[in-house]
Amino acid sequence: MELTGKNLIAGTLGGDGKSTFSAFNPVGGQKLKPIFVEATTDEADAALVKAVEASESLSRISDQVRADFLREVADRIMGIGAPLIERAMEETGLPEARLVGERGRTVGQIRLFADLVEEGSWVEARIDTADPERQPLPKPDLRRYLVPLGPVVVFGASNFPLAFSVAGGDTVSALAAGNPVVVKAHPAHPGTSELVARAIALAVEDCSMPAGTFSLLHGIGHEIGSYLVQHPSTCAVGFTGSLAGGRALFDLASQRPVPIPVYAEMGSTNPVFLLPNAVKTRGVEIAAGLHGSVTLGVGQFCTNPGLVVGMDSPSLDSFVDELAAITAKSEPGTMLHAGIRDAYEMRVEEVGRIKGVKMLAHSKRRTRKKDTQASAVVFEVSGEDFLASPRLAEEVFGPSTLLVRCDSVDELYAVAQRLEGHLTATLQATEADLTEYSRLLHILEGKVGRLLFNGFPTGVEVCPSMHHGGPYPATTDSRSTSVGTAAISRFARPICYQNFPQEALPAELQDQNSRRIWRLVNGRQTREDL
Amino acid sequence: MELTGKNLIAGTLGGDGKSTFSAFNPVGGQKLKPIFVEATTDEADAALVKAVEASESLSRISDQVRADFLREVADRIMGIGAPLIERAMEETGLPEARLVGERGRTVGQIRLFADLVEEGSWVEARIDTADPERQPLPKPDLRRYLVPLGPVVVFGASNFPLAFSVAGGDTVSALAAGNPVVVKAHPAHPGTSELVARAIALAVEDCSMPAGTFSLLHGIGHEIGSYLVQHPSTCAVGFTGSLAGGRALFDLASQRPVPIPVYAEMGSTNPVFLLPNAVKTRGVEIAAGLHGSVTLGVGQFCTNPGLVVGMDSPSLDSFVDELAAITAKSEPGTMLHAGIRDAYEMRVEEVGRIKGVKMLAHSKRRTRKKDTQASAVVFEVSGEDFLASPRLAEEVFGPSTLLVRCDSVDELYAVAQRLEGHLTATLQATEADLTEYSRLLHILEGKVGRLLFNGFPTGVEVCPSMHHGGPYPATTDSRSTSVGTAAISRFARPICYQNFPQEALPAELQDQNSRRIWRLVNGRQTREDL
Repeated sequence: MELTGKNLIAGTLGGDGKSTFSAFNPVGGQKLKPIFVEATTDEADAALVKAVEASESLSRISDQVRADFLREVADRIMGIGAPLIERAMEETGLPEARLVGERGRTVGQIRLFADLVEEGSWVEARIDTADPERQPLPKPDLRRYLVPLGPVVVFGASNFPLAFSVAGGDTVSALAAGNPVVVKAHPAHPGTSELVARAIALAVEDCSMPAGTFSLLHGIGHEIGSYLVQHPSTCAVGFTGSLAGGRALFDLASQRPVPIPVYAEMGSTNPVFLLPNAVKTRGVEIAAGLHGSVTLGVGQFCTNPGLVVGMDSPSLDSFVDELAAITAKSEPGTMLHAGIRDAYEMRVEEVGRIKGVKMLAHSKRRTRKKDTQASAVVFEVSGEDFLASPRLAEEVFGPSTLLVRCDSVDELYAVAQRLEGHLTATLQATEADLTEYSRLLHILEGKVGRLLFNGFPTGVEVCPSMHHGGPYPATTDSRSTSVGTAAISRFARPICYQNFPQEALPAELQDQNSRRIWRLVNGRQTREDL
Repeated sequence: MELTGKNLIAGTLGGDGKSTFSAFNPVGGQKLKPIFVEATTDEADAALVKAVEASESLSRISDQVRADFLREVADRIMGIGAPLIERAMEETGLPEARLVGERGRTVGQIRLFADLVEEGSWVEARIDTADPERQPLPKPDLRRYLVPLGPVVVFGASNFPLAFSVAGGDTVSALAAGNPVVVKAHPAHPGTSELVARAIALAVEDCSMPAGTFSLLHGIGHEIGSYLVQHPSTCAVGFTGSLAGGRALFDLASQRPVPIPVYAEMGSTNPVFLLPNAVKTRGVEIAAGLHGSVTLGVGQFCTNPGLVVGMDSPSLDSFVDELAAITAKSEPGTMLHAGIRDAYEMRVEEVGRIKGVKMLAHSKRRTRKKDTQASAVVFEVSGEDFLASPRLAEEVFGPSTLLVRCDSVDELYAVAQRLEGHLTATLQATEADLTEYSRLLHILEGKVGRLLFNGFPTGVEVCPSMHHGGPYPATTDSRSTSVGTAAISRFARPICYQNFPQEALPAELQDQNSRRIWRLVNGRQTREDL
């Protein structure tokens, strides 16, 4: 499949724009072919016009067809074969094994949503039957389920060129709920984006889905993104990226004449708390695990732990020695692009200059600048100095972490209290620690979306119980997740039918439960017919 | 119970402010005793400080205690007896039967939420068990459920002094989810608000709930409300009122450093579509029902139908004649306060001056200005003129309605397409009409939260299947309802525990399902233990 560098609008390639750009290989820095054409606002408008048309037809397409379509998307992505992995490697510098794994995660996720749509209970059907005899007023027949919101705009993320990009969680959960999707491709991997977009477009065609079900638009600046978010036909937005980027989109969306929801997953430092008994019994093991989690993907995951909080003790010293030793020996890695690498270096420098911060360790290996490499850094600061410098609590995107050494449990609680919203927090603890420091667990429950007992926050399982979200600034909407099947409800809203005849009701709400879905009927969960 | 005119902050009466105000009886217009003291920002801050304290304890209080507390609130409200109804009549001009009914609805709603909390499945528990052998990576144990958001600010509505006010749906769903609530009382019924607030405070005391679980603050201007919405401790806002008011709060909340959700239920004209066969067979009956729905509560419900759309025909003429005749004979009614009545009269005048609008009928009875009375009006306009004047689609709060006479089915569809978001839409139709005009149903599904087949939109059943919401500008969040048990999830967010030991998990997520709640365990709905 030859890359065209064009936008893909409802199945048709388009490149009317004058502004062009290229992708670069972060390893070596050379420019990659072809040249990509930024979408014009007319093209963005055309994509949304087609999306609105598709919305109307999508509501008449059966769930089975939608499930089959999602499976076809997965098959088509696998069908691209090696060229997809090769292009993604060139554009991101990520290693082959990681990208093969990420592709597996991506298609696995798509198939999981296909199963969810096919099973059908996600629509949260509820039925309350009539009671015409009720006094003082008769009770009507009421039936409620979820319907799609309408066209969704998704911004591809740079750090997962497959799993959080063109066919990533946001796109797939929006499609699964029955919405058309317009993706704004991340400009750092436009070729990977085009390959995946064309796979989706082929699946649209194969399954006779409406053409406007999917479009892909390229853009390097903010113009196209802002235009899409402000377009009156856009009904919701999915985004994974920086706090500044996510907040800007949220502000645009909130200030529209008709505000729309923005699901932005933004920064998180994913604090790890080291509790005394755990450090005493497993300090060395924790150091190795932590280093692995900090440097995974060259620290470019939203779940890398950028903050480690412990209490001063000889065991903590041994932990620190081990962490410093491993860090010194660690290999540099290629970051996604020069912009991210430069920002990382700047932030590392900035943190190092903050009062009370000392550099505990850094990789001794040579970092090749032309290969966009960065290497691991560990900082240390006292609890007191940490509490005095709010800037230290902010994310450094890359393989660095900051150890906060508290001199008392009260100081450790104070550090926890000071935290803003995060995706995760981890307790390295024994069961005895959990009991003794239960207050910490309680504080953290108010701060994060996912709590880990031991283990490390990198690695986000795709399943019904996953919650990948958290209070602001981790996300713009703590009530929703961007990973796992619960993501589907972000792109749907309830509608209620009062006293409708059976034939006019959607299948999910008819007396005969032909879909065999779970429904709440007169307050009782059941899969029975009425 | 003597009214104090003071604010009630975490169980303590307070009146530090210098600014005072009074309630007025809309019947006759006389000022009512006592004088009420506006809350100061210090008092508002104190209420939220106490609410934050309460948040922490609330999470350790069992659901059974919370359910008992809600039932005690209901009993305490009933325990006020006649003085509550009498004060509400004085402050709102609403008739006794209506207020007795509204009180029944209010306590019924509170008890319904108590049952919901006691049953427990509302937390949407999901469990995916570990698979340590999985390749290439072991699968962790993940368990997710809903936890409260934190302090919720609720604005009492003027039009339901009990059911959408101090102990109304917003307050009760927030309390049910485990959040403390700070109510900003509506200044038109401060005495009714104080009576209900003191009933809640007594229930807080009886059930040993934390004092900060509930506070009531008075205010006539925007200052206290704005302060509450912008306060860093506020986690969500519930509001029922005007579009201007709701949007102002939404804007404040979105522009905070940490944005928070605002559930504002705002204007709606609740269009009624008259389809040909229905008008032919039941025109006279529909006219009577429509008039009843337009004038119910002197047109001060959020669900009064302010727009009626039909197709030109002799049957429509008969319908119109009947509607005009009933309207001419209809009795004026007292509106809630002079501000609402004046706004109604102004809007009626404005609509009458818009191009193509003619007054079809108005009540011939004398309207007593000193009793804040208003009377019914019916306007008519052609489909063409309606489409040319967007202002005609906006709500007129009061007992008026506008008939749009379309000259073709295409024009009727165009009128439907032009609609913004509404709480409801009604189809006066036969089953044959539904089939013939299925496109109309399809258009309306994209515009509203509740669709009615015949009947009228006034009367909002409180039950699991109710959806009282709709796309903007009906509400600021089409994904949520302000009536019915589903409202509880507005004030909660998911949290996920990874690899936690049993004892550290909340009861809802332990292997042993001691609460016997419905849980999604490894993708399967069940009430069994693991």
